Amino acid sequence: MHQEVLEKCVQAYGAAAIMANCSTALKNNVLESIAGSLQDNKKKIVEANIADLEQLKQKESYTGAFHDRLMLTDERIDSMAESLFEIAALDDPIGEVTGMWKRPNGLQIGRVRVPIGVIGIIYEARPNVTVDAAALALKAGNAVILRGSSEAINSNKELVGIIQKCLSVYELPAAVVSIIEDTEHAAALDLMKANDYVDLLIPRGGPKLIRTVIENSTVPVIQTGAGNCHTYIDSNADITMAVEIAVNAKVQRPGVCNAMETLLVHRDIASSYLPKIITALTEHGVEIRGCKKTSEYSPVVKPATETDWETEYLDLVLAVKVVNNFDEAIEHINRYGTGHSEAIITSDYKRSRDFMARVDAAAVYVNASTRFTDGFVFGLGAEMGISTQKLHARGPMGLEALTSLKYIIYGSGQIR
Amino acid sequence: MHQEVLEKCVQAYGAAAIMANCSTALKNNVLESIAGSLQDNKKKIVEANIADLEQLKQKESYTGAFHDRLMLTDERIDSMAESLFEIAALDDPIGEVTGMWKRPNGLQIGRVRVPIGVIGIIYEARPNVTVDAAALALKAGNAVILRGSSEAINSNKELVGIIQKCLSVYELPAAVVSIIEDTEHAAALDLMKANDYVDLLIPRGGPKLIRTVIENSTVPVIQTGAGNCHTYIDSNADITMAVEIAVNAKVQRPGVCNAMETLLVHRDIASSYLPKIITALTEHGVEIRGCKKTSEYSPVVKPATETDWETEYLDLVLAVKVVNNFDEAIEHINRYGTGHSEAIITSDYKRSRDFMARVDAAAVYVNASTRFTDGFVFGLGAEMGISTQKLHARGPMGLEALTSLKYIIYGSGQIR
Repeated sequence: MHQEVLEKCVQAYGAAAIMANCSTALKNNVLESIAGSLQDNKKKIVEANIADLEQLKQKESYTGAFHDRLMLTDERIDSMAESLFEIAALDDPIGEVTGMWKRPNGLQIGRVRVPIGVIGIIYEARPNVTVDAAALALKAGNAVILRGSSEAINSNKELVGIIQKCLSVYELPAAVVSIIEDTEHAAALDLMKANDYVDLLIPRGGPKLIRTVIENSTVPVIQTGAGNCHTYIDSNADITMAVEIAVNAKVQRPGVCNAMETLLVHRDIASSYLPKIITALTEHGVEIRGCKKTSEYSPVVKPATETDWETEYLDLVLAVKVVNNFDEAIEHINRYGTGHSEAIITSDYKRSRDFMARVDAAAVYVNASTRFTDGFVFGLGAEMGISTQKLHARGPMGLEALTSLKYIIYGSGQIR
Repeated sequence: MHQEVLEKCVQAYGAAAIMANCSTALKNNVLESIAGSLQDNKKKIVEANIADLEQLKQKESYTGAFHDRLMLTDERIDSMAESLFEIAALDDPIGEVTGMWKRPNGLQIGRVRVPIGVIGIIYEARPNVTVDAAALALKAGNAVILRGSSEAINSNKELVGIIQKCLSVYELPAAVVSIIEDTEHAAALDLMKANDYVDLLIPRGGPKLIRTVIENSTVPVIQTGAGNCHTYIDSNADITMAVEIAVNAKVQRPGVCNAMETLLVHRDIASSYLPKIITALTEHGVEIRGCKKTSEYSPVVKPATETDWETEYLDLVLAVKVVNNFDEAIEHINRYGTGHSEAIITSDYKRSRDFMARVDAAAVYVNASTRFTDGFVFGLGAEMGISTQKLHARGPMGLEALTSLKYIIYGSGQIR
């Protein structure tokens, strides 16, 4: 294992033991102090960020979108500080006894919520993740090892330096929040195999990053992100509602994982619904790729291929398919969906229930836009990403997703 | 991917969708019908088992203990049937809404308990696991793919054949419970990488099996098993209780993961406690390997090395260490323990609380034997193993550990 990774793992492991028994007040004080320090050090943060942006311009990977994700401005720093205050204001999940019962032999057995321990975050060039992820992990009593991409290394080092100064003011070890500065791929691989020290890895980024972490990690991973989301317009949907929701799910913010990528339309409502929705979407600049039946309703529809059903466009492109019945819609969703967010628009009671029961996804909606799948919007107060796996955490991950449980057993001399 | 593994994965995936919406009554009927069939087919099961036992005798891996684990008798089949009736009698975890709340925009958001989907079990030559694991997975609405060891293949095929007949009587697909018959290692590796079909892998067996699964699997894994458990005798422990509990934790069943492997003794109680416990343990045939101070109390104590602190003996051997203070005990446990079950014997209120808070393990005890860590004993009604990781499930895994949650969102036309 790389010396730097090993050292930071060992130190984080020690820091996690201290964090596990840190009072709520202390954790909140640290979070608020970080918020203040970020605002006091805007100039230094922006300077470090400019160094990253300058280097980016020399690189082949340069795109305007990449530049925008990497850029930190005074407003963005304010918004990072703002979210720290919000995280400080959340209830502390640690210490909650989720249940306690007594056994016939007198043993009192309960379960208490405890931190996970050491959480590794592997992410792309988004410096806001540095602060967000550190703050959430810290509030839930964990230590965190960050591994950002090389493009953001100056910004990340500056941000983590500020966080570590605040930790030291409160006599907490710097290793509560550390960053792997070695930007070689091998260092990330070491972190993925550090089972003796790291309890959980969360990759945050595109499909390639997530796949790399899943394929190489022996540390438990929570898979986040990919959203090939569907909206199914049932035969008896309210047409106005179905147009409004589909437009919102596609165009309100097309680049995010909870945006709709495929629209399924029951054949009985196709003739009244499709002309309206195609017009509305086209007005918003959406390119429509439809099945053969869809194309009968408008000349703007391009032919969809098998690939379109599988694609998360993250763009103003939509696949549209007319289905023969409710079952075909369910089958299509369970086959091509990524288990993220799926919606039915219907006025039928039984179908609303059947859709909920049969669609296998983190979030299943009746008569609402898939765009709501989000920790803040759901009322969790914060979000560490959206899990699309079924283990440990599914859907938006709030503070609770960063905790574990342990059994506590009070006896008076019981033997077996 | 091997043809057999791929086919069984695809079929299990389809079967899981049917199981997810199976009524409680139907699941219980199937479980009870399997119990009946096992009892009706004892002769055939024992015959198949004898074929396995005969083959085992030719192998180098043959030991008496191995033979005993593999052997099925009429009584053992009755006990398998008994546990099926018990699983049928448990509450169905599926469908429970664990919470529901309303957002300011009128969206009603809840979480409902759903099956995991397809669960793979990779295990050693214990045919009782075949029935137990299948029954638990089925009761929680999952499909299960079993991958037992080659030594038990005839027994396992016979048992799964009986289970599949019962499934077909209730018009459920055979693929709800299937077994990989290819006993090559490559087939198991395929199962470990079948992320498109398998939601969770649970290895059940020794450290080598578990390590192989963790190192090779890209499917999420729950780690079970290893228990290097400690009992710490605090300075003011009740001596009689401390002797009784330590003897029980070591000798009542030394070959299981919740048995004590190291005894830690506060130096202030060493002179009054150690002679008594060493005598008591020696009477039970326990070999004592102690630190230098321990050896001062009895000539039977052999010197302990670093390896002893790390070893899960699973035998009538015990490592003993005198510690200078409470902190040293905690540090020793958190350093050498495997996060399974840890106990303190004390009459001090504050130390009981500090031990609970600071020891990082699945089950932490005050004044009781570590031998209680068990799904049945804890009142969970059943057990799929004892998780020593912090993700998803920790400690004894009952039915709930075989479930996931999904968000359900009821709207009335909300857009973002």
